Amino acid sequence: MRDLRPLLSPRSVAVVGASTNPAKAGGILFKNLVDGGFSGPLYPVNPRADTVLGYTAYARVGDLPAAPDLAFVVLPRAAVCPVVEECAAAGVRAVCIITSGFGEADAEGRREQARLVDIIRRSGMLAIGPNTIGLVVPHRRLYGSFVPFPSWTPGPIAIFAQTGIFAGAVMLQEMSRPTQRPGVRMSVDAGNKIDVDEIDFLHAAAGDPEVGVVGFYLEEIRDVRAFLQTAGRVGETKPVVLLKPGRTVPGASASASHTGALAVDDRVLDGALRQHGVLRAEGVEDFLLTLRVLAWSSPPAGPRVAVVSYSGALGVMAVDEIVSAGLELAEFAPATRERLAALLPAWQVPANPADLWVALEVHGNRRGHEAALEAVLADPHTDMVLAILLAPPNADFPDVREVFAGLRERHPHKAFVLVIYGGEVRERWLHALEGLGVPVAPNPRVAVRSLAALARWAAVRRRTKADIPTPGRTAWEP
Amino acid sequence: MRDLRPLLSPRSVAVVGASTNPAKAGGILFKNLVDGGFSGPLYPVNPRADTVLGYTAYARVGDLPAAPDLAFVVLPRAAVCPVVEECAAAGVRAVCIITSGFGEADAEGRREQARLVDIIRRSGMLAIGPNTIGLVVPHRRLYGSFVPFPSWTPGPIAIFAQTGIFAGAVMLQEMSRPTQRPGVRMSVDAGNKIDVDEIDFLHAAAGDPEVGVVGFYLEEIRDVRAFLQTAGRVGETKPVVLLKPGRTVPGASASASHTGALAVDDRVLDGALRQHGVLRAEGVEDFLLTLRVLAWSSPPAGPRVAVVSYSGALGVMAVDEIVSAGLELAEFAPATRERLAALLPAWQVPANPADLWVALEVHGNRRGHEAALEAVLADPHTDMVLAILLAPPNADFPDVREVFAGLRERHPHKAFVLVIYGGEVRERWLHALEGLGVPVAPNPRVAVRSLAALARWAAVRRRTKADIPTPGRTAWEP
Repeated sequence: MRDLRPLLSPRSVAVVGASTNPAKAGGILFKNLVDGGFSGPLYPVNPRADTVLGYTAYARVGDLPAAPDLAFVVLPRAAVCPVVEECAAAGVRAVCIITSGFGEADAEGRREQARLVDIIRRSGMLAIGPNTIGLVVPHRRLYGSFVPFPSWTPGPIAIFAQTGIFAGAVMLQEMSRPTQRPGVRMSVDAGNKIDVDEIDFLHAAAGDPEVGVVGFYLEEIRDVRAFLQTAGRVGETKPVVLLKPGRTVPGASASASHTGALAVDDRVLDGALRQHGVLRAEGVEDFLLTLRVLAWSSPPAGPRVAVVSYSGALGVMAVDEIVSAGLELAEFAPATRERLAALLPAWQVPANPADLWVALEVHGNRRGHEAALEAVLADPHTDMVLAILLAPPNADFPDVREVFAGLRERHPHKAFVLVIYGGEVRERWLHALEGLGVPVAPNPRVAVRSLAALARWAAVRRRTKADIPTPGRTAWEP
Repeated sequence: MRDLRPLLSPRSVAVVGASTNPAKAGGILFKNLVDGGFSGPLYPVNPRADTVLGYTAYARVGDLPAAPDLAFVVLPRAAVCPVVEECAAAGVRAVCIITSGFGEADAEGRREQARLVDIIRRSGMLAIGPNTIGLVVPHRRLYGSFVPFPSWTPGPIAIFAQTGIFAGAVMLQEMSRPTQRPGVRMSVDAGNKIDVDEIDFLHAAAGDPEVGVVGFYLEEIRDVRAFLQTAGRVGETKPVVLLKPGRTVPGASASASHTGALAVDDRVLDGALRQHGVLRAEGVEDFLLTLRVLAWSSPPAGPRVAVVSYSGALGVMAVDEIVSAGLELAEFAPATRERLAALLPAWQVPANPADLWVALEVHGNRRGHEAALEAVLADPHTDMVLAILLAPPNADFPDVREVFAGLRERHPHKAFVLVIYGGEVRERWLHALEGLGVPVAPNPRVAVRSLAALARWAAVRRRTKADIPTPGRTAWEP
């Protein structure tokens, strides 16, 4: 088991190729580290500058006053190997090689990558890349990416990806939202994955008490058997979510030209993942929501879903998704049916999905929401609740935060996902929900898929009878 | 073929049950009509008020100075039948019965609904409802819904739904977005569908030259054979999209309790829909995007998709979706490969999907986008282009609108859908694209599904050799 701390929690950082030009990758990356507020020593290495953004620049890695834990390398391809050699000689403990044009490229690139691999192996340094956007570790204020970011919300999600999007534009979008931001412990773009791989990351994530959920985007799994075994073990306490393309033959072949991934029989892989409790996501939206739902929810006791909807049609559509995802529609207990009946007009039979729109006009907006959700959350026959809310102005009420905080507090062990449709009032409700650990999904389909992942993970956990405490999974307090 | 103009394009409107209480459905609905700026005479009918919002109120429908084309009925259930009788006697031409608690409810409701049906049949009036949120016809400034709306963007989409969400909260969300709003000709909540049905609506949509696309949410198709035939005929010139739950047995049974829909064998129905060229959507997100893509795009000449992506991983994931959706990955012409090669470093082989991220740093952000998209749009081997853009600040450029307007103008017959990930810059790009008819999808999966629907429709159209001009499908000028 390798100690990834020099990479994921470095005490000092150098950027080799820290450009004074803010339009170049090396300039942006260094500026990001500065703007992000990294607290340890930060060394720009640039032979043609005295300072970079006010930091004393050094001509070579060997000139640094102390060997940094982590060195980013942002140089033309031909310069990379010699500099990585210098890093090794200087006692650098980890390198993050941003430069592309290696194994994913031409014959020359493959030769250079082989040289790199050799240098890394001999040195014992940790390496990610080449061909990576970098990595972001919010709690260390380490914004080691060449995408300029607002500050990330810290939290229990750990991501390891063979793509830059989760340390780049996609995560920029997530972190630019005013509400419902995922809380991230760290996000690493593995690039061409010449050294630190998914297994190393699984061990690191398992050993970090603040990590609650692990997400992977992998185009190639280096050692499938080892990955399945390790992910299976880690999954007993922390859910592991995998987004992997190549479900189709052309998809696998596109993946091969992107990262040199070897094709595997996807159906065989899919079955094995399922068997080992690895949760597979369908696409980017699904992946990010599932990580968020897993991070914010306690494992439910079973697969029974209650649907409370303020639109009959959306409730009906959710049922198809629930059944397709392998979940069950809860059968409400008699007491729940009575409590719902008390909210509904005499002619409306309380059922699952429960359509509560009329209750708003009869009992007022607050009671029409609170009493219905309370009833299904309190029902011993429900494990998860999907609430599909409508937020036109005439469904608004002033105590949204109080209502949902109360529901969450009284029923911490029921998974609870919302979908909300509306305009300005919807935005206000989203703000009111901030910090309560109530995930809001963009539509019923992905809401149900995320609940299905949560239920599958809970089932794995029950099967392995793991009663190990799971710090970092501080549900409801993201 | 029934003339639906009294319903969809009324010259005068009454609201029976126009409350002076702005919290009640009848009060909100009347206020919406007033605030929406309906241009014809507007009559509140309310025996307990002299005026409602400054409009002279009438005690009974029979007292109105002239029979309105359309009367909304927002009254307790027991009062509905007598008032509808009055409407018939007064010469009202269409009624929209908002009140719920009829066929979807108890035995008394079913009896009342039977009475209603009888009154409507004898009178020859048009009716929608009962149990409807109403209807919205933006070009007539007719906001006949009890959800308070901002103004809708007018356009070629016609929706007929057995749910209120498309004249309620879901459409409120769509119309509250600052960009990428769908353009709607009319949206009708059919409610319990006792009179005007999907076939009537198909005929009306076919006959309205401003309608370009027809969307249905149906839980029950009254006469499947007639629907398929009519939709098939209409589909030769205007695409028909159907969102219908009940794919699973519990889904069908939930649908039955929502609207009394009879279960049909969904696989049989699905095959028949496909055979008749009706495009089936998977969920709400998919439905709305597909309508927008169909409204803004010319029918492509074939199923060949080019993917230009600024993230290798997102390109790879799109390939799986393209293949799963039955589309083809275009094989680029030699000239296109040369043009792409000129943008890429020597080691990167131009392929489909084309990963252009590196081109931005080498050739600048504008050229890295414009030249790549121009190359694939100009390729005679591509029918559709999916561009997955990343919008971190370092990919930004000032002439976004000019670039995309030019691409659209030079290649009006290529379907073109974008996905954009990013923060603030993404919002600016979205604003820059407004009015160009370039649909932006929330993620690659739904983007591909919408292109697949577009390609299927184009294939149907080619098969039927329809060369009828399609006014209203003013592509690129939504």
